[in-house]
Amino acid sequence: MSDTFDELWGALAPVGRQRTTGGYRRFSWTAADAEARAWFTAAATDRGLTVETDRNGNLWAWWGEPGPDALVTGSHLDSVPDGGGYDGPLGVVSALAAVDELRARGVRPARPLAVTVFVEEEGARFGVACLGSRLLTGAITPERARGLTDADGITWARAMADAGLDPDRIGADPEAVRRIGTFVELHIEQGRHLVHRGSALGVASAVWPHGRWRLDFTGQADHAGTTRLADRNDPMLPFAETVLAARATAEAHDAVATIGKVQVHPNGTNAIPSRVRAWLDARAPDEATLRTVVDGVTAAARRSSGRHGVSHASFQESFSPVVRFREDLRDRVAAVIGGPDGSAPVLPTGAGHDAGTLAASTATVMMFVRNPSGVSHAPDEYAEPADCHAGVTALADVLADLLGAA
Amino acid sequence: MSDTFDELWGALAPVGRQRTTGGYRRFSWTAADAEARAWFTAAATDRGLTVETDRNGNLWAWWGEPGPDALVTGSHLDSVPDGGGYDGPLGVVSALAAVDELRARGVRPARPLAVTVFVEEEGARFGVACLGSRLLTGAITPERARGLTDADGITWARAMADAGLDPDRIGADPEAVRRIGTFVELHIEQGRHLVHRGSALGVASAVWPHGRWRLDFTGQADHAGTTRLADRNDPMLPFAETVLAARATAEAHDAVATIGKVQVHPNGTNAIPSRVRAWLDARAPDEATLRTVVDGVTAAARRSSGRHGVSHASFQESFSPVVRFREDLRDRVAAVIGGPDGSAPVLPTGAGHDAGTLAASTATVMMFVRNPSGVSHAPDEYAEPADCHAGVTALADVLADLLGAA
Repeated sequence: MSDTFDELWGALAPVGRQRTTGGYRRFSWTAADAEARAWFTAAATDRGLTVETDRNGNLWAWWGEPGPDALVTGSHLDSVPDGGGYDGPLGVVSALAAVDELRARGVRPARPLAVTVFVEEEGARFGVACLGSRLLTGAITPERARGLTDADGITWARAMADAGLDPDRIGADPEAVRRIGTFVELHIEQGRHLVHRGSALGVASAVWPHGRWRLDFTGQADHAGTTRLADRNDPMLPFAETVLAARATAEAHDAVATIGKVQVHPNGTNAIPSRVRAWLDARAPDEATLRTVVDGVTAAARRSSGRHGVSHASFQESFSPVVRFREDLRDRVAAVIGGPDGSAPVLPTGAGHDAGTLAASTATVMMFVRNPSGVSHAPDEYAEPADCHAGVTALADVLADLLGAA
Repeated sequence: MSDTFDELWGALAPVGRQRTTGGYRRFSWTAADAEARAWFTAAATDRGLTVETDRNGNLWAWWGEPGPDALVTGSHLDSVPDGGGYDGPLGVVSALAAVDELRARGVRPARPLAVTVFVEEEGARFGVACLGSRLLTGAITPERARGLTDADGITWARAMADAGLDPDRIGADPEAVRRIGTFVELHIEQGRHLVHRGSALGVASAVWPHGRWRLDFTGQADHAGTTRLADRNDPMLPFAETVLAARATAEAHDAVATIGKVQVHPNGTNAIPSRVRAWLDARAPDEATLRTVVDGVTAAARRSSGRHGVSHASFQESFSPVVRFREDLRDRVAAVIGGPDGSAPVLPTGAGHDAGTLAASTATVMMFVRNPSGVSHAPDEYAEPADCHAGVTALADVLADLLGAA
């Protein structure tokens, strides 16, 4: 089904692509997002699948009647700012191509099968990752979700309403969750484990616990030329010290910590800032370590702010506990993918995924496709076509096995 | 003429004021700027002054026929992002009120008198401070000015054309410069020297040499969760080290250095940045010291970038040599302002001004009005009404003295 895959991939590729960087800006409820969703609906409808939008804005394309114990596969279409084209879309395109492959093999599913697209997986616009699957499973309250704002102050509720959906209806949807018998997410690997293992495909063991914290440094705006250094309350200084503290603390605990998003106010060349707002992304093999790292960073931010006459506050914006995928399902999928050559590699990931959110309520498994450079969330993110095609075949094998039709 | 001042001040106050911060956003060639310019034109016309716009977009309101050896006073109306209301407008409003005061005293100028408004003094939109006076005096080439861009990529030429002016005509205007016999700029003090001296008014001795340097740190965008620390080329780290190096270097040399503007790309919470771009504002009592400070900061940026596998480049965006105002004029003005109590305080300033640009080609003097908190370039910037009124009276005294009509 490499033709099917290539055709679907080619049709989606231009949507939201930035001419200047070659990266993608597919933010939830924007024009690019609407175009990507329309592409999905058309591709699914072409395949005779019935597309529905759930109360939280996630898309479901059903092969057969929607019903309980369904086999569900999919991923997301939204991107980080100037992200790559594979993170998310590879899982959606591969799922549609796998449906074609199953059809070509003459498989007639004895249980319902659905291809899904979850909204706002990256949290790039509204700040909370996996928002669509969190809402679905009740991992976030509808009140909090409705009030989330983007950089322009537009709320999730407003953006969703502008896209023609009813924000009053969002929230936990136990009925929709109960329909999922098993969820399979195929995803590009966001590191180089598979390169080192010499394997095109792998299976996930666990998702590291991770979260986002907002760090606010509030000082006093002033003239950069006329205010003596001793008279300043410049929030840029404790911010800079905190960036370095985050790196050192993560290093000391074999964790990762990143400050990749910063907003400076007023952001004028000749004005000492009144405020620097930064976001800390931290992940660790276990929750105790993660807590130690984050506590270390926020303590450093407080101490440093105190030294510079700046006030500091930090807020946890999201937290995802460790997810260990079901071992029986993981081993079964690894065996199917590995075939006669033996089981596919099993690896942990530092990235959150909708599969991780769903793992709390349903049987869930994740498959990874090799990424030669390991680069992710950037225009250079890439997978070889041969590996993508192998992914489609493997996904079809896994679905057939789980349908009892292998 | 406190009534006149208060009326003019009240009419200008709402223009470009931000509801959320109380600060001002009066950027060149925006709607707020057009409104401020229209306010000036109407106020000057009401006073029987003849308003002309020069080839570079600066405004001149003439009392009497434009001609050589004119006495010129004024300042600017543009602001930094969320700046205060006094930096610039105080000089323009005081100049118009001083004209009323001279009229009330029955003064009939024997030489032409003009009130000016220079464009883009702050450089907040297009990055080069004192752009209007630099163009007028030939301190920047028209080619370079036309190509300057704002944050949205709009050029000076385009913005000026959209405002109805011809960007092909900008550049050095020796005829307009030759008309200026003496230039007097009244300005709010941007520090607390006058508070310490217990004086409402002062006179400038010199403007510290100063400039802006753009610092680019270019790394590799990558996923914040899955990229090992050792594999990263994260430009945020050398940027943070450079912020701290700038402070330490300035401190060591009794200079000031500020990083108040930062752009992070792609600026996503879970993406290691591909690039951090920052602007260094540095000022020192003399040019050798300034050079030492800037060289120290850029060397630190290079070393730190090298350690983190990040590439670094720095660019001088603007440079203003030291300006020492004419001592005879300075002392004459200080004596007029001080009156029978003795000369007004004479003080240096770390801020650039159009008066500094003009000092290279014409006799120039600057007067300062006390600023109780010393805060500038921020909404809290403030001068007491009584001090503002004293400034108008003193400016009228100075103008009358220079007109030979005192």
